[in-house]
Amino acid sequence: MARVSQEHLDARRRQILQGAARCFAVNGFHGTSMQDVLKEIGLSAGAVYRYFAGKEELITAIAGEAFASIRQAFEEAADITPPPTPDVLLGRVMRGILSGRMYGLERRACAALIVQVWAETLRDERLAQVLDDGYTGMRVAWAKLVEAYRAAGILHSDVPADDVARTMIAVAQGFVTQEALFGGVEPEVLENGLRGLMSMDPQKIS
Amino acid sequence: MARVSQEHLDARRRQILQGAARCFAVNGFHGTSMQDVLKEIGLSAGAVYRYFAGKEELITAIAGEAFASIRQAFEEAADITPPPTPDVLLGRVMRGILSGRMYGLERRACAALIVQVWAETLRDERLAQVLDDGYTGMRVAWAKLVEAYRAAGILHSDVPADDVARTMIAVAQGFVTQEALFGGVEPEVLENGLRGLMSMDPQKIS
Repeated sequence: MARVSQEHLDARRRQILQGAARCFAVNGFHGTSMQDVLKEIGLSAGAVYRYFAGKEELITAIAGEAFASIRQAFEEAADITPPPTPDVLLGRVMRGILSGRMYGLERRACAALIVQVWAETLRDERLAQVLDDGYTGMRVAWAKLVEAYRAAGILHSDVPADDVARTMIAVAQGFVTQEALFGGVEPEVLENGLRGLMSMDPQKIS
Repeated sequence: MARVSQEHLDARRRQILQGAARCFAVNGFHGTSMQDVLKEIGLSAGAVYRYFAGKEELITAIAGEAFASIRQAFEEAADITPPPTPDVLLGRVMRGILSGRMYGLERRACAALIVQVWAETLRDERLAQVLDDGYTGMRVAWAKLVEAYRAAGILHSDVPADDVARTMIAVAQGFVTQEALFGGVEPEVLENGLRGLMSMDPQKIS
């Protein structure tokens, strides 16, 4: 058998994941069979099983790569000096997540895929581990950024940095949910909304 | 056949929905059969099908009631004068959602059920309509509250009230996601995080 190049293997792997992602986004994890995936990408079972033992491995790989993609969007945004405020940062991250660079999916399909992964995570321990690791890494990185805000005199409260980080992550998760369920979520909505919250004066009435 | 009281009918309906909610929260919508629901509540098929034609009707009813419950938590919080700031309001709403008054579920199971409903919504048009209506109503109510903040001089930005409303809803959705996936989300995290964001000074660096 002829040796195939790493490049070829990588391209084939990508082709399989893209097809699986399209299927999962449209029909959900449970509404998709391996036959559907094979049909979508036009490959034989043998060609696909060489890379992935089954649906579970496909979705675990997709979830891992989705986290890497979100991390990349965050790191690109956070690398700017001075660090952009949450409205600007989350706007950029959101554009990155929903830009279609994840498996070439349309924005809403991309959001739908993420919600499908969440639902599947509730029943799949290996997937839960992937998400737990990804989320823990995200919390640490975002909390560092919050400390940088504080050091720069932009954040005036002494609340735990991790709580602010988790709230920023929650905003991103919530907008992914809204895009998946209803569509039409423009990153400007999130940017404006955060600017509105940041303009509030809690001392005034509390 | 003897007539049964409305009270009895309501109690029976509630019993069925509670059992179904427990099943869906643990095993997901696709991992639950009508047989599982019957077994969970210990009723005959005839007794259950008198109320609900199948799984789809069960989940639609559960989603509709979940929205009513979230709306109630919001209205109870927003009825206070002056209206509580977003940190206080969302803390209360979150406590309401995850208090177990929804089908007597534990906090994390309750969050898991909501994520299951989201995933199922992507493939079920009737459910999508229920969520769309619920979400639209929520946006209108929350936007009114944001206008009240502005009128009270607490909100200093001229961003659209709807954008702030959607961002606040996103925070709640994001924390439901985090509770479902990882557990251990205390409402204080959300309260602190929002207080931190509200203490920020975007003018300082932009």
